[in-house]
Amino acid sequence: MSQRDSQRLFGKGYKFKIFKMVSQPGQFATQEEIKIQGSRGELKLRIVGPVRQDTQIELAATDCYKLGIKPVLRVSGKVKGTPGAVLIGPKGRNKIKQGVIVAQRHLHLAPNEAKSLKLKSGQLVSVKIKGPRELIFDNVIVRSGAGHKKSFQLDTDEGNACGWMPGIKGELIK
Amino acid sequence: MSQRDSQRLFGKGYKFKIFKMVSQPGQFATQEEIKIQGSRGELKLRIVGPVRQDTQIELAATDCYKLGIKPVLRVSGKVKGTPGAVLIGPKGRNKIKQGVIVAQRHLHLAPNEAKSLKLKSGQLVSVKIKGPRELIFDNVIVRSGAGHKKSFQLDTDEGNACGWMPGIKGELIK
Repeated sequence: MSQRDSQRLFGKGYKFKIFKMVSQPGQFATQEEIKIQGSRGELKLRIVGPVRQDTQIELAATDCYKLGIKPVLRVSGKVKGTPGAVLIGPKGRNKIKQGVIVAQRHLHLAPNEAKSLKLKSGQLVSVKIKGPRELIFDNVIVRSGAGHKKSFQLDTDEGNACGWMPGIKGELIK
Repeated sequence: MSQRDSQRLFGKGYKFKIFKMVSQPGQFATQEEIKIQGSRGELKLRIVGPVRQDTQIELAATDCYKLGIKPVLRVSGKVKGTPGAVLIGPKGRNKIKQGVIVAQRHLHLAPNEAKSLKLKSGQLVSVKIKGPRELIFDNVIVRSGAGHKKSFQLDTDEGNACGWMPGIKGELIK
């Protein structure tokens, strides 16, 4: 969420409270939630802090259909031309013109992790998930650089499609 | 839906109205809808007619989590030991003790189609879906016999995970 949207939805100078730290260093889910409203319905969303340059909402396609928002697959950060929505916070609402994406599945790696795997940021790899819903995800984009840490990130549709559960392992296929 | 559950939810002698025919010969989605209730919420469901031996509810895992029902992966028809739920129709409600499944992805084939592909009912195959969310689904079970017709069946989680849209093609990998 951008500083500007944070002010509109939560008021000037508001500071988010940490709910829990997430996989990427320094990032956290907030205790605060907002609502996103589309043409067909609304959903509650949790925010990932700290504030960023642009507001971006990552949804599973299942949730896009429920909200009446066209699912548009994008690498995180590439929000130009994506659908908008109405965001509702405790102190106000804001109609954003773009920013709703279905995130392309990706593999975060710290620079030394990428180096030891001989992978470069932006490269596409495949990941095999074993189990009763075994599958191979192609088109997994490597995202590496300062502030990244090893984490394979799927949305809920993808997690469910491969039968993800705590402890499940993936195998990197170059 | 079983005849017995149909009577409980819609009244004795009720006949479902056809909304549209579905892929398997003689089967249709009904105009009528019911509600399914779990510990966390409820959802509307459409029925596939005609009535069957046992009531079975096929849900995507996303919807299981929303309803508060444990997702249990099963081949269609194998409902023993699966979670139950409350079903609500216009004339009554019924608490079923089992019957909610996440359907194992499957490939329906008519007997002559299976024969020409050298596949047997029960065999596991893989299906590759191309496009921006390209992936290979393993553990696709072949279901063949009288009354089956070629159709590759995924749930909404799986469809979204592979970027399904009308016209998308899959490649059978044995």
